[in-house]
Amino acid sequence: MKKGLLILLSGPSGVGKGTVRKQIFKNTDLNLAYSISMTTRKPREGEVDGQDYFFVSEERFEEAIKNEELLEYARFVGNYYGTPKAYVEKLREEGKNVFLEIEVEGAKKVLEEYKEDKGVLSIFLLPPSLRELEKRIRGRRSEPEEIIQERLGKAKREMGLKKNYQFNVLNDNINRSSQEIARIIDLKIKANKVED
Amino acid sequence: MKKGLLILLSGPSGVGKGTVRKQIFKNTDLNLAYSISMTTRKPREGEVDGQDYFFVSEERFEEAIKNEELLEYARFVGNYYGTPKAYVEKLREEGKNVFLEIEVEGAKKVLEEYKEDKGVLSIFLLPPSLRELEKRIRGRRSEPEEIIQERLGKAKREMGLKKNYQFNVLNDNINRSSQEIARIIDLKIKANKVED
Repeated sequence: MKKGLLILLSGPSGVGKGTVRKQIFKNTDLNLAYSISMTTRKPREGEVDGQDYFFVSEERFEEAIKNEELLEYARFVGNYYGTPKAYVEKLREEGKNVFLEIEVEGAKKVLEEYKEDKGVLSIFLLPPSLRELEKRIRGRRSEPEEIIQERLGKAKREMGLKKNYQFNVLNDNINRSSQEIARIIDLKIKANKVED
Repeated sequence: MKKGLLILLSGPSGVGKGTVRKQIFKNTDLNLAYSISMTTRKPREGEVDGQDYFFVSEERFEEAIKNEELLEYARFVGNYYGTPKAYVEKLREEGKNVFLEIEVEGAKKVLEEYKEDKGVLSIFLLPPSLRELEKRIRGRRSEPEEIIQERLGKAKREMGLKKNYQFNVLNDNINRSSQEIARIIDLKIKANKVED
């Protein structure tokens, strides 16, 4: 069996990566699999280890960092979150197309790690305009102007990395952009069969 | 041998279709072929029949229209220009990937004609913004405001048809957008080999 793809979807905060991802996963023909993250956060009610997350101790996580077991990781509100490479590769070996919806910073590391891998598909989601992105960032919740300016600055810096991706897809309309990405994935799956 | 693709590149006037097309044709791996147009215009010095154009009489062109030999045609400054279907199909039968860089109106007819053909790849080139498109349209030459407004209105109407295309590619940078289109074509060529 041909090894599955590693699909990276990234883009600035607020562009709508999560919504697009959910839409794309409805397309069962694409044989997609989520990558499960490792975290030091405590499981919430109903969350299952190895299904929602790999729940580990701080000590185990830092060991994973040291041993370079993680494709990327970040610390967020006092907890670690990371993507275990072994799990991603296991899914790919099973023929699954692993879908990573990931922040620009983390994606940068993954792209670097996989730069020689022909089974990687990288997609950067573009906002219809910077003005529209600002509207979305402001609309999320009411926060001090200082925080909003910080987020906007970050989003603009993130936009500068779009050229590192194989495809830039405009998220002007959720159905259209999701369909376009599904189309790219479909072509890549078929192309992957004939590529060596 | 597998039949070649029909690749349609369209987008509003002024978006830069011609520049992108020239850039993409540098990529010889894609096995691209121009479709040669039929015209009633007189050959200019150095132009060769069957190479630059198929030069025909007004009578012959109107016969071609009547017999539905043309995928699309338009009248421009007193002359007819059209795309002969038989020639496009001949090239595709030879395994060539035929590239049509075409106005939105003409493309609409071609998309309709080929809607059941899995070997069609349709790409709509987007301007970075409507403001940028306006700048380009104004920049071309100095014309009366009335003419410019007419062109702008046309470009906006043309933008409305982008959703009919499989791919929308942002022409933010000529190298990036050309590379992205070349990548889509490359995937489609490979996918075409495994599609039935």
